[in-house]
Amino acid sequence: MQMGLVGLGKMGGFMRTRIKDAGIEVVGFDPRPEVTDVGSLAELTEALDAPRIVWVMVPSGEPTRSTVRTLSETLSPGDLVIDGGNSKYTDDAINAELLSAKGISYIDCGVSGGVWGLENGYGLMCGGAKADVERAMPIFDALRPPGERADGFVHAGQVGAGHYAKMVHNGIEYGLMHAYGEGYEILDAEPLIEDVTGTLRAWTNGTVVRSWLLELLVKALQEDPGLAEISDYTTDSGEGRWTVEEAIRHSVPANVISAALFARFASRQEGGSPALKAVSALRNQFGGHSVVPKSASSQ
Amino acid sequence: MQMGLVGLGKMGGFMRTRIKDAGIEVVGFDPRPEVTDVGSLAELTEALDAPRIVWVMVPSGEPTRSTVRTLSETLSPGDLVIDGGNSKYTDDAINAELLSAKGISYIDCGVSGGVWGLENGYGLMCGGAKADVERAMPIFDALRPPGERADGFVHAGQVGAGHYAKMVHNGIEYGLMHAYGEGYEILDAEPLIEDVTGTLRAWTNGTVVRSWLLELLVKALQEDPGLAEISDYTTDSGEGRWTVEEAIRHSVPANVISAALFARFASRQEGGSPALKAVSALRNQFGGHSVVPKSASSQ
Amino acid sequence: MQMGLVGLGKMGGFMRTRIKDAGIEVVGFDPRPEVTDVGSLAELTEALDAPRIVWVMVPSGEPTRSTVRTLSETLSPGDLVIDGGNSKYTDDAINAELLSAKGISYIDCGVSGGVWGLENGYGLMCGGAKADVERAMPIFDALRPPGERADGFVHAGQVGAGHYAKMVHNGIEYGLMHAYGEGYEILDAEPLIEDVTGTLRAWTNGTVVRSWLLELLVKALQEDPGLAEISDYTTDSGEGRWTVEEAIRHSVPANVISAALFARFASRQEGGSPALKAVSALRNQFGGHSVVPKSASSQ
Amino acid sequence: MQMGLVGLGKMGGFMRTRIKDAGIEVVGFDPRPEVTDVGSLAELTEALDAPRIVWVMVPSGEPTRSTVRTLSETLSPGDLVIDGGNSKYTDDAINAELLSAKGISYIDCGVSGGVWGLENGYGLMCGGAKADVERAMPIFDALRPPGERADGFVHAGQVGAGHYAKMVHNGIEYGLMHAYGEGYEILDAEPLIEDVTGTLRAWTNGTVVRSWLLELLVKALQEDPGLAEISDYTTDSGEGRWTVEEAIRHSVPANVISAALFARFASRQEGGSPALKAVSALRNQFGGHSVVPKSASSQ
Repeated sequence: MQMGLVGLGKMGGFMRTRIKDAGIEVVGFDPRPEVTDVGSLAELTEALDAPRIVWVMVPSGEPTRSTVRTLSETLSPGDLVIDGGNSKYTDDAINAELLSAKGISYIDCGVSGGVWGLENGYGLMCGGAKADVERAMPIFDALRPPGERADGFVHAGQVGAGHYAKMVHNGIEYGLMHAYGEGYEILDAEPLIEDVTGTLRAWTNGTVVRSWLLELLVKALQEDPGLAEISDYTTDSGEGRWTVEEAIRHSVPANVISAALFARFASRQEGGSPALKAVSALRNQFGGHSVVPKSASSQ
Repeated sequence: MQMGLVGLGKMGGFMRTRIKDAGIEVVGFDPRPEVTDVGSLAELTEALDAPRIVWVMVPSGEPTRSTVRTLSETLSPGDLVIDGGNSKYTDDAINAELLSAKGISYIDCGVSGGVWGLENGYGLMCGGAKADVERAMPIFDALRPPGERADGFVHAGQVGAGHYAKMVHNGIEYGLMHAYGEGYEILDAEPLIEDVTGTLRAWTNGTVVRSWLLELLVKALQEDPGLAEISDYTTDSGEGRWTVEEAIRHSVPANVISAALFARFASRQEGGSPALKAVSALRNQFGGHSVVPKSASSQ
Repeated sequence: MQMGLVGLGKMGGFMRTRIKDAGIEVVGFDPRPEVTDVGSLAELTEALDAPRIVWVMVPSGEPTRSTVRTLSETLSPGDLVIDGGNSKYTDDAINAELLSAKGISYIDCGVSGGVWGLENGYGLMCGGAKADVERAMPIFDALRPPGERADGFVHAGQVGAGHYAKMVHNGIEYGLMHAYGEGYEILDAEPLIEDVTGTLRAWTNGTVVRSWLLELLVKALQEDPGLAEISDYTTDSGEGRWTVEEAIRHSVPANVISAALFARFASRQEGGSPALKAVSALRNQFGGHSVVPKSASSQ
Repeated sequence: MQMGLVGLGKMGGFMRTRIKDAGIEVVGFDPRPEVTDVGSLAELTEALDAPRIVWVMVPSGEPTRSTVRTLSETLSPGDLVIDGGNSKYTDDAINAELLSAKGISYIDCGVSGGVWGLENGYGLMCGGAKADVERAMPIFDALRPPGERADGFVHAGQVGAGHYAKMVHNGIEYGLMHAYGEGYEILDAEPLIEDVTGTLRAWTNGTVVRSWLLELLVKALQEDPGLAEISDYTTDSGEGRWTVEEAIRHSVPANVISAALFARFASRQEGGSPALKAVSALRNQFGGHSVVPKSASSQ
């Protein structure tokens, strides 16, 4: 079997290794000459025998959309494009329609597992037509973790379902990480707890809260006790925002996921929170602290 | 009429003025010689004719408790103590029992209005026996705003009810201020809005969100456009915490008031949020950003 | 002066009265024959002398958009359309562009005050070109509350700014109402508070939390003690959702406004919360309550 | 080795089995004659050779406190009591002091794992003196999961640390479960997702959100598709409340854990939410919906 892979960054590069290790030939394209196999998407197309499968693994938004637009011109009817990036699910219908007009099929595939996927395999959620998914199954099987297929792979629905599932996966991830974060912060603040890292480590086996994320948190604390080298500045890459927007669209009370998202926003307000400046200004107004604006009022 | 007033700080001092203006004689005690009328609580007691009314207006917690303990020794049976500070309502039963053993009555009175109370009158919520409240009514009438008594004064229940009401009042205040703060922050972030202060000012008349706090926010923005001189560091004086604790005790979902409280906590984490450091550390772990620990991962 | 008014529902009808009382001639159109002055938007146009001003006061979304489309065909260059409904601010650019192509001007105007606006005047926030706003000023002056113009009216910015401001106004309104709601619920749960309505009423004068909404809450409690006749089923009309979406777009932590929005969502889940069913199912799984699925587990 | 075990309910009974399987003799006491080995705590004491170890596994609060009080009278100097229930950590100092006066040692031990602990082993967090912990180590080793001791057991600190750690563990558990719950609810609401259970199942291997709780959720959905047999009524057993109270004490912004706790409160308001009744009443007031109190207002 043979496939094209567009985007050989950390995720794409590791995935190439894993797919090759499963005996599938991979022709990779990347703008960086030192990692690419071909010089352009057109050359990538030429290097593959029809009907082709091309996996796109580039940043979501315009980079992915423009890659798909170019592929719609270089590929042939009967070919198949898989978007494995973190695209917004609403992009999938646009991509699928564009390709469909040229007789090209489309699958969206959410990929989870981070850099550990190379070793452990990646959790995959895909959306698309059944025949297309079956055709790409050897690639999915190469990428997913060992063991039962259904424990690491799902054909969640039609085009868009894969990215939708990945979006919600990441929204949950925000909530899980923040729940551990709050618990860590409380433990760390309490003098009774003499061994915070040891306590978290103890939780990794037998307890109700055991998880892979918890194991990673223990690893992080072992590498950097007290997380002294870590800034609390936390970015977000879109899926958390989209999850809350979907919650609003479906009238789902998403207090936990939105709280985790908003905490990230707050972590990036380097000039301070305008909302809290307003609160502070109000306290000064009714407390009469005109001279010492930063002090507390006792109304 | 005659009364004693313990604590002549900003609140106590302004209240003394308002009570005197109503024709009531006030003997004040304060540790600061430049403002006090007498040298001690014992002297205060001597300076008043029995049966006495003594209003305590000192910081909550130990300062108030120790003042009440001393008064329980200097006052006589038939006297009345009013705690007008921001004591936790659970202190009231303790104070009342201590005084009752000496035949002294007790009223707890929540006082709201800040420095503006001198001019506008103070909103009052009190708890205690009906006869005691009636006895102190001329003082309450002096302090409360003009107009109908029920629009600025309430006898909310037995001892403790006044401080309970004031605690909830302040919890609501946290929520109201933060709601305005969030709205201000959104308006301020949106380029379409060319006149943020003007927009808030327009809301002060006719709209659903008009309030005294909104008028104060407009005043603050007029005095300090963009709140450039204000830090977002926001303290809390106890009532917000107690309100959330009471919500927990009564199984009340207090998402809004607790969010406002927690935002204040976050504003004071000068070394950064440990919870978000944990989140960031996790993102580094699964995103593999071992070299650039502060950057975002795209899993 | 003369104007057209499309939409004579509760809001539009009351506004017509207030504008007429200011001496402005109003020709109204409404699909209901018993209230309309003319039979169609075309007739409305004919009934007015050019250059015309037509105020649209119909439900947001398609009803408003289709009204504007029709007006773009019946009106003449130099006319002015004002959308006073609760349209999403992103509709304004579309409406303005459509009308501009025909030489027709456009103002968006957020209107607050509810049914009380007839008597008290309406708070107004508008967006558009300066000349257009000045031209419509007599109408705005008729609608806004008495007193200083800037305390009830703002020209917040270009087209879209008025509805943006109104959207945020309503988002804040969600937060304010829920803060009062939570406080009311805590007071109501606490036996110490013997007079909940009286306590809230006392807060309407002198306190920090006094506001028009608080006065309305007291009125509601006086009319229906314990709110026995009121369901907790609470709808939302869009602005709350949009406010949270804007908060996400601008990376503003909107914990309070979103909590108020989500509580409304939860109030409408008549079959129960799927999220909490999942939580309950999990507790059954690890607590082993296979036989009594609704009971609590003690792990 | 030999020990006493007080409380042979689901948790205690399973733990007895696991300890016995490790070759430790267990004398159990329970008020239910059909499961108990002895008739009273006095008989339990007599049945053991000094120095004794007695593990208490009864409901937290008064049941545990009274058991400890009785044991303080029946046991001898040199004996050791371990409280393995879900006691509040503040009870531990009281228990330890009471026993210490009689020369009896005390360990608090948080136990996690639910009914699965019998098979998998229990995660253990304990607080107490080093010598006491070492003495009870064979019991801890019998209960904890196989593998490295530190991955399922921690001596977290002095007396109280074990229950403190367990409390925070459960607080995190609230947040984790609710994050999954919200994600499940969004997936379930979205028509694109044709196989919700399959999607969750796919996440159990390879993804970032994989965990034991997720596996249990998949199991629950497989047993009861759509969770049709599950009520959303969700109780709480104390640790979630205490965790939020501790967050408040330590000024930790615990938005996620408190949101999860408050959602449980809301699930139990069978007469409806008083806060939302207040919001609804307010909307009626300014929207003028006096005749149709449950409908939405468009202000």
